[in-house]
Amino acid sequence: MSMDIVIAGFGTVGQGVAEAIAMRKDLIREAFGKEARIVGAFDSSSAIYSEEGLDPSVLLANKSGTGRVGDEPLVDGVAFLESIDYDVLVEVSPTNIETGGSGLHHIRSALSNGRHVVTVNKGPLALAFGELSRLAQANGVEMRYEGSVGGAMPIINLCRESLMGQNIDSIMGILNGTCNFILSRMDDGLPFEQALKEAQELGYAETDPSYDINGVDTACKVVILANSVFGIDCTYDDVDVTGITAITEEAVAMAADQNYCIRLIGEISPERLEVSPRLITRGHPLSVTGTLNVAQVNTDLAGPISISGRGAGRMETASAILSDLLAIMRSNVNNK
Amino acid sequence: MSMDIVIAGFGTVGQGVAEAIAMRKDLIREAFGKEARIVGAFDSSSAIYSEEGLDPSVLLANKSGTGRVGDEPLVDGVAFLESIDYDVLVEVSPTNIETGGSGLHHIRSALSNGRHVVTVNKGPLALAFGELSRLAQANGVEMRYEGSVGGAMPIINLCRESLMGQNIDSIMGILNGTCNFILSRMDDGLPFEQALKEAQELGYAETDPSYDINGVDTACKVVILANSVFGIDCTYDDVDVTGITAITEEAVAMAADQNYCIRLIGEISPERLEVSPRLITRGHPLSVTGTLNVAQVNTDLAGPISISGRGAGRMETASAILSDLLAIMRSNVNNK
Repeated sequence: MSMDIVIAGFGTVGQGVAEAIAMRKDLIREAFGKEARIVGAFDSSSAIYSEEGLDPSVLLANKSGTGRVGDEPLVDGVAFLESIDYDVLVEVSPTNIETGGSGLHHIRSALSNGRHVVTVNKGPLALAFGELSRLAQANGVEMRYEGSVGGAMPIINLCRESLMGQNIDSIMGILNGTCNFILSRMDDGLPFEQALKEAQELGYAETDPSYDINGVDTACKVVILANSVFGIDCTYDDVDVTGITAITEEAVAMAADQNYCIRLIGEISPERLEVSPRLITRGHPLSVTGTLNVAQVNTDLAGPISISGRGAGRMETASAILSDLLAIMRSNVNNK
Repeated sequence: MSMDIVIAGFGTVGQGVAEAIAMRKDLIREAFGKEARIVGAFDSSSAIYSEEGLDPSVLLANKSGTGRVGDEPLVDGVAFLESIDYDVLVEVSPTNIETGGSGLHHIRSALSNGRHVVTVNKGPLALAFGELSRLAQANGVEMRYEGSVGGAMPIINLCRESLMGQNIDSIMGILNGTCNFILSRMDDGLPFEQALKEAQELGYAETDPSYDINGVDTACKVVILANSVFGIDCTYDDVDVTGITAITEEAVAMAADQNYCIRLIGEISPERLEVSPRLITRGHPLSVTGTLNVAQVNTDLAGPISISGRGAGRMETASAILSDLLAIMRSNVNNK
């Protein structure tokens, strides 16, 4: 009696997932009467598998000792996945939002073979959401991706479960913590370049920050919410995108004089898929500062419901993956 | 194949529930393959029952035409409930937080007879949460109360479902929209008395606003969260309560100078049950303005997750009740 997991990608997030599963061993056994076991893992150059289950602490020690999670060389992730038996693929390999990268191949392989998938990999989702959902449905398995939008902020499960009785008219959100940090520091009077530099020094922005500040990352999340919450079959090219690079100190100061702040907002509705800087009244749920993510879900009966949380981080993202794993266990509690 | 509902109390919220059930007829049938039917309803002086189901629009027309929902006189709610057959009691009769009022008797009767209960009635929950939960458990039924805390804001279901894999360390929240409106207007420079008067004129505060401004209402919600999320067996008397009546314009202005605002916060943790005014940094998720409610759930893996929504209102509260009804249908989908 177990749910057998393979982790594809053993970087920061993959390691966090191994740790989170170990930390929640007892809770899982108590709630579902069975274990969640890691039976396999691979990174860019190595792989490991045991049908008896692997000790998460051994995987973490392997990685920190040798830089490799496994003792076998990895030739091809798909070939590895198709050579082993498991129930759920946790796909957290590096994102490629132009081609979908190897993550796209891993997810296709898993779903085609009747395995559930939990992923935070935005590339495959932003490029091929419709195809992958249909593949999951055709094979009678679940694909879940809570952590791909907003990190620890449970926006997708909120819409699916708690707001199940609502018609959702639109979602507006701050979906990129790097941009929000930069804009928050501009509220404090810093010019854009200096705020960006500070974000880089603190590790919130990459050396090449263009995907964040040009709105590309936010647009990927817009695509994921449009597909998953609204059932709009769209990809990255369908989103109107404006980033934050043209926002001046003067614009921020003028907004502040009128009790507004400027935030990079992703908007999703049946009429509009857009990423652009917007004026937000101070004290509004979308006026949060720092690296937080927040989303406002506009519903017909309940009115606007907002949710916020940390948009990134090792354990924050791992905890979103854990919540998806638990949801799969819950809906498959009578199987196996 | 139906879930048969009785509505106890047919005021603003009870009418909203009837309307919401009618609006979601198709969604419910599609999702669960059975109907949610209202088979009975009563208010302070009248009752109505039909095992065939009642048309919500007829109930609403009765009430608006005659001021009474039913055509039989009501002698005693409990006697009425014990004379009919149904699956779920929606208890939305007037709240009495000193004795629990007739709502407490209705809930006890329903649970003892193996009926599920959905309520937003804070009195019975704040006074007898432990007793009622044990009664539900002993009779194999559910008691749900999402709308009793934060109106449309789905804080309880968020903690139960989306945050199931988290250890929750504490919850801090703005749980009373009236106080938050008054404090927000004080941010704009109004003195307390004038802000209160405005809240009364706009219908946000009662003629006797003491339960709101003295923190009593917030304390009831602290009790409900403490019991339901933390499993702390407590009642109203266990909460340290300070209201907002002693907050001066000067205090608000001094806070603003330091980039803070003052908010009435309910705090729930295994160590502390408290209602008191606190300094909140502007831009923090707990710094919202107006009649919104917001709660920050502090978790071990995901960090802080905040959720906000409208704390009151006819359809907002009805929609929280609807979400509880759907949850009961979901977990009992194979029965009956």
